[in-house]
Amino acid sequence: MNTVTLRPFAVGDDSALWAMLEPVFRAGDTYAIDPDIPREEALAYWCGPGRHVFVAEVAGEVLGSYYIVRNQAGGGSHVCNCGFVTSPAARGRGVARAMLAHSLKTAPQLGFRAMQFNFVVASNTRAIDIWQRAGFDVVGRLPGAFRHPEQGFVDALVMYRRLDQAP
Amino acid sequence: MNTVTLRPFAVGDDSALWAMLEPVFRAGDTYAIDPDIPREEALAYWCGPGRHVFVAEVAGEVLGSYYIVRNQAGGGSHVCNCGFVTSPAARGRGVARAMLAHSLKTAPQLGFRAMQFNFVVASNTRAIDIWQRAGFDVVGRLPGAFRHPEQGFVDALVMYRRLDQAP
Repeated sequence: MNTVTLRPFAVGDDSALWAMLEPVFRAGDTYAIDPDIPREEALAYWCGPGRHVFVAEVAGEVLGSYYIVRNQAGGGSHVCNCGFVTSPAARGRGVARAMLAHSLKTAPQLGFRAMQFNFVVASNTRAIDIWQRAGFDVVGRLPGAFRHPEQGFVDALVMYRRLDQAP
Repeated sequence: MNTVTLRPFAVGDDSALWAMLEPVFRAGDTYAIDPDIPREEALAYWCGPGRHVFVAEVAGEVLGSYYIVRNQAGGGSHVCNCGFVTSPAARGRGVARAMLAHSLKTAPQLGFRAMQFNFVVASNTRAIDIWQRAGFDVVGRLPGAFRHPEQGFVDALVMYRRLDQAP
């Protein structure tokens, strides 16, 4: 039995975070991030201004991280965006699910009324399944907006969930 | 008869650009930008890294500006985003249309294969009409994603157009 603990990101988590981000960004098949992004730039992206960053621990080991940030400024400030990353060692241990549940609880506490994923690569069916089961709707489809390293041009989805309603 | 001339933004255009951006951003009813954004931050937003910025002149007067920037990094780099602003004095003089035509010609020259507007406030029907007539499709609808200063929560649209096809 694994217990997944969520806590705020701390400076000492840099290396653990990069160890998770590096293979995901280098693969270039899920995040619209330059695959050759340098370490410091990737950490600055994940932990940049206005971002609330958390890590997920199992038995004291960091196996996941996510951020919450407002998705737009001004009149769009009540909608947040999140990014999630897990370690390969996290698979099947409920880390992704625990982070998603934590984000859906935390976002309203931060004043957000909805959560939006701007660019979900359509071939990332595992993530899409998880989010749809958590109450997210596909509200947009960007035709051929992502060039997948193996599959070529694939669609990207926009997913959205209000936070003031049960899923 | 007005002739609209497009040229790259130059440093001396700062004041003319801000004169156009200020009322639009302060009004807070079309751009998801903090209405109290300071001048320097607004100019840095419009002319930031990676942005190709142009101005539209009529009889030597700057009456419009737009930028082109990649909308995502990595596998999303082939899709651009644009932002447009016009002076109130530009109304009915073909400035918006000239900038849109220029952007649709310039974006492919910069290597982009599609253009995306991420957040078109649904109450901004004038812009939506222009873009639909120029071949943009509404590919997404974000429910209540914009808090309009008079109308309250309104939808925002995602609009998209491939650049390798006639409109």
